[in-house]
Amino acid sequence: MNRDARALLIAATGEDPEPYREALKAHMPDLVVHDESESYDPASIAYALVWKPTAGLMARLPNLEAIFSMGAGIDHVLADPELPPGPPIVRLMHDKTREQMRDYALHAVLHYYRLMDVASAQQASRKWAFLQIRDKAKLKVGVLGLGEMGGAAARALAGLGFSVLGWSRSARQIDGVTSFSGADGLKAMLAESYFLLSVLPATEDTVGILNAELFAALPKGAVVINIGRGNHLVPADLLAALDSGHLAGAALDVFDPEPMPQDSPFWTHPKVRVTPHIASDGNAEICGDAVTANIRRIETGLPPEPVGDRARGY
Amino acid sequence: MNRDARALLIAATGEDPEPYREALKAHMPDLVVHDESESYDPASIAYALVWKPTAGLMARLPNLEAIFSMGAGIDHVLADPELPPGPPIVRLMHDKTREQMRDYALHAVLHYYRLMDVASAQQASRKWAFLQIRDKAKLKVGVLGLGEMGGAAARALAGLGFSVLGWSRSARQIDGVTSFSGADGLKAMLAESYFLLSVLPATEDTVGILNAELFAALPKGAVVINIGRGNHLVPADLLAALDSGHLAGAALDVFDPEPMPQDSPFWTHPKVRVTPHIASDGNAEICGDAVTANIRRIETGLPPEPVGDRARGY
Ligand SMILES: NC(=O)c1ccc[n+]([C@@H]2O[C@H](COP(=O)([O-])OP(=O)(O)OC[C@H]3O[C@@H](n4cnc5c(N)ncnc54)[C@H](OP(=O)(O)O)[C@@H]3O)[C@@H](O)[C@H]2O)c1
Ligand SMILES: NC(=O)c1ccc[n+]([C@@H]2O[C@H](COP(=O)([O-])OP(=O)(O)OC[C@H]3O[C@@H](n4cnc5c(N)ncnc54)[C@H](OP(=O)(O)O)[C@@H]3O)[C@@H](O)[C@H]2O)c1
Repeated sequence: MNRDARALLIAATGEDPEPYREALKAHMPDLVVHDESESYDPASIAYALVWKPTAGLMARLPNLEAIFSMGAGIDHVLADPELPPGPPIVRLMHDKTREQMRDYALHAVLHYYRLMDVASAQQASRKWAFLQIRDKAKLKVGVLGLGEMGGAAARALAGLGFSVLGWSRSARQIDGVTSFSGADGLKAMLAESYFLLSVLPATEDTVGILNAELFAALPKGAVVINIGRGNHLVPADLLAALDSGHLAGAALDVFDPEPMPQDSPFWTHPKVRVTPHIASDGNAEICGDAVTANIRRIETGLPPEPVGDRARGY
Repeated sequence: MNRDARALLIAATGEDPEPYREALKAHMPDLVVHDESESYDPASIAYALVWKPTAGLMARLPNLEAIFSMGAGIDHVLADPELPPGPPIVRLMHDKTREQMRDYALHAVLHYYRLMDVASAQQASRKWAFLQIRDKAKLKVGVLGLGEMGGAAARALAGLGFSVLGWSRSARQIDGVTSFSGADGLKAMLAESYFLLSVLPATEDTVGILNAELFAALPKGAVVINIGRGNHLVPADLLAALDSGHLAGAALDVFDPEPMPQDSPFWTHPKVRVTPHIASDGNAEICGDAVTANIRRIETGLPPEPVGDRARGY
């Protein structure tokens, strides 16, 4: 195939393809870009840029060389039972994404550390009452997942003087972060985590991990922040732990399904803060930048990066 | 006088003296500590630890060697028209105070930068709508006052990738911060400040500075954060600027008077976040640590630090 025939297909459920097309074209004016609403020759598609792609669609592209995820996670790609085994699944990774996730995490931890939820409640009842600032050494932050995103958040939290603990599959070395791994490591970390930040990928091993057993292992008064994936959380277990008074609050950015249904109790729960999957925005500009950089790598014979590991599931 | 006669008087309006007494004694068990409810010999008082001390009280202590402020500001001490001219007025300064103010500032700026106020409003109406993350380069943070507190906040904000502008009496050099001074400098800075953080001391020159003219000089959609003093702000001017839609929000930690009266419109204003003077908590432990360190300096012939400048007013 010549260069011109190496087209890119945008297959993004629930996303408008236009900003992505523009962003790609801004970096590579010659790239032929199709979206699913257009007619295109499946054999011309060398690249797919996807978010929750329709099952079976990737398998119908015989010359597919790489699948670009619109997010850091690849769970939404692996969900396709007919996914062709060949093309690498490239994760969206950009300094901006790390920064956005880090900023969300800093805000959420500071919010609860500085009792901003209590201050809001006081304001609502016109109550002026001093709120003593607690000792950071006694209110540790546990981070589930110390990868690109969790690692950036953990580092920044440690930089602000928080005592940071982190859990990953293989124990990681991060300055200022005490590392844990394995089931025992998790238990040990949870017992000390007043703020639990989950930045895990969704895999067979992690789905449902934010459940009653995990909440019970946290100290009384702990707060859970989930910016990984919605299916990590068992909603009924979180509600029970909040309502019993064991947990003091939760900030949730990801849900299963998304958009969160209108009848979800999270919308109105006084101890739950909901944001609509905006911890990072993986926007078209970031995506166009990262994807075209990887296309250039591929076209000069280099592997794209970072590539998700299908066997591990992330 | 011998060492034993050099007593300290706690004269703190609205504060319980006990935790301060304990914290001082923890560092200096031999220090004689009185509070205003006790009978004491005015001639025995070498040190006063004060918050809004009663007018005339300092003048009745003939052997006063230093006045320790319970806060970083000295405005509440200078407010006494009979204040004796001799003793230095020592500001409360501690790494913890800088850190607390920095953390409050980071939280407040991130809160508005990441549209958490909008996200809360969306949650309240069960609305799931994407919120695009804006470019930090286009949403600059202006910091009024680049001293111990403002400087720490400005540095940390720059470290998170914000474009930071700062205004002080004399132009300051801080890495990553563009400095302004004077009336023209203020105007120039305001025109670019989407987030305006005020960490000024209250002086003749700064009282009332957060007024209609200043708000008009900010870009439309700007947010005002006041952690300096309540009397910097003209409440009616802020309300008008919020209600006209020119300002998008305000986070206020300091008020005039404090506690904020029950009938203040700030309690219920949908665009105003109120916290009860907790940006730093100048708590007894920090105070005991810093004050006894300065007493040791004085008793070994060194000057206490930092000392407020009576002529400048801060
Ligand atoms: N809310 C949002 O807007 C948003 C945005 C971006 C990403 N995300 C989510 O964040 C996730 C993480 O992204 P990332 O780029 O940081 O991924 P990553 O670099 O692959 O890191 C994943 C981390 O999780 C750990 N991990 C995976 N499985 C584990 C297990 N079974 N037990 C313990 N630790 C395990 C990994 O351990 P090892 O270090 O040992 O491999 C690694 O530290 C994404 O998959 C996505 O779901 C959400
Ligand atoms: N909310 C709270 O819990 C809390 C806690 C602590 C402090 N505070 C407030 O924060 C204030 C600042 O504390 P700090 O320790 O940072 O004080 P500082 O070290 O004395 O710094 C004051 C800063 O304001 C600048 N400034 C003073 N007058 C000015 C004027 N007329 N025009 C322009 N700039 C002016 C100074 O300029 P130069 O650099 O040229 O001197 C300096 O940069 C305190 O006075 C107090 O009111 C509030």
